[in-house]
Amino acid sequence: MPQRYWEDFSPGSVSEFGPRLVTRDEIVEFAAAFDPQPMHLDEAAACASMLGSLAASGWHSCCLLMRMISDGFLAQSHFLGAPGVDEVRWLRPLRAGESIRVRATVLETRASNSRPQLGFVKFLFELLDSSGNVLMTLTVSPMFGRRDAASASRDRMPG
Amino acid sequence: MPQRYWEDFSPGSVSEFGPRLVTRDEIVEFAAAFDPQPMHLDEAAACASMLGSLAASGWHSCCLLMRMISDGFLAQSHFLGAPGVDEVRWLRPLRAGESIRVRATVLETRASNSRPQLGFVKFLFELLDSSGNVLMTLTVSPMFGRRDAASASRDRMPG
Repeated sequence: MPQRYWEDFSPGSVSEFGPRLVTRDEIVEFAAAFDPQPMHLDEAAACASMLGSLAASGWHSCCLLMRMISDGFLAQSHFLGAPGVDEVRWLRPLRAGESIRVRATVLETRASNSRPQLGFVKFLFELLDSSGNVLMTLTVSPMFGRRDAASASRDRMPG
Repeated sequence: MPQRYWEDFSPGSVSEFGPRLVTRDEIVEFAAAFDPQPMHLDEAAACASMLGSLAASGWHSCCLLMRMISDGFLAQSHFLGAPGVDEVRWLRPLRAGESIRVRATVLETRASNSRPQLGFVKFLFELLDSSGNVLMTLTVSPMFGRRDAASASRDRMPG
């Protein structure tokens, strides 16, 4: 059962999730499905590109990060999705064989004006390689249920 | 062989790509891999959520859009990737069985200051359903090779 509500996220708090090993096969499989550029599919083409060697689609990095934060804390939270993404920056290539982690920093929290049962938590997510280099940053403000709203709802229940 | 260079994108121009039918199976498969929230995996959970019925992960929408613009024009262009994403807005759920299209609007073009061989093209991509509703907007500035640079390079070739 979910444990964490909007109230449980504090600005400035930092958490880490992972690691996850990224294989050549999954990089190529993802690229073939969604981002079939030669630089994500073929070693020779990647060497001739700005990437220098085979590297994951930037969208693959986003999806791997999503999975790591889902397992890391969203599945244990009253997570209600997000209205969008504020910004993504792809800073360094994600190579096959790399072991990645996610560092999550709470930038700010904000109650919803229109929906008192939820609030927004603005995160900076950083995708790190095994040396601690930042491969990608992602800024996003997902919504979480409020503990107050859950309590109010229970108070209204009959009996 | 790629045909379109940076110079071939004009601010204000609008193109459409697709359509593509999105199945329930692919929505669930993607969610299970990358975004395993009950609202993307299970009809009953989705009905109880803000989505109202089973709908694709927002990241899946991004990836489907990427594939549609890859097939639509990137594969025929001197596309060099993107430094990131400026903004994503998920406006309406993408339901199973929906047929989607992409509308691409060129917002502006800008030569690179540091790399004369490439330029940036800022796009607004809109993911549309079969009724023309905008499900998602995505603003991004991919890089493309410049025709001038290619010509200069050819001029320097021996023979």
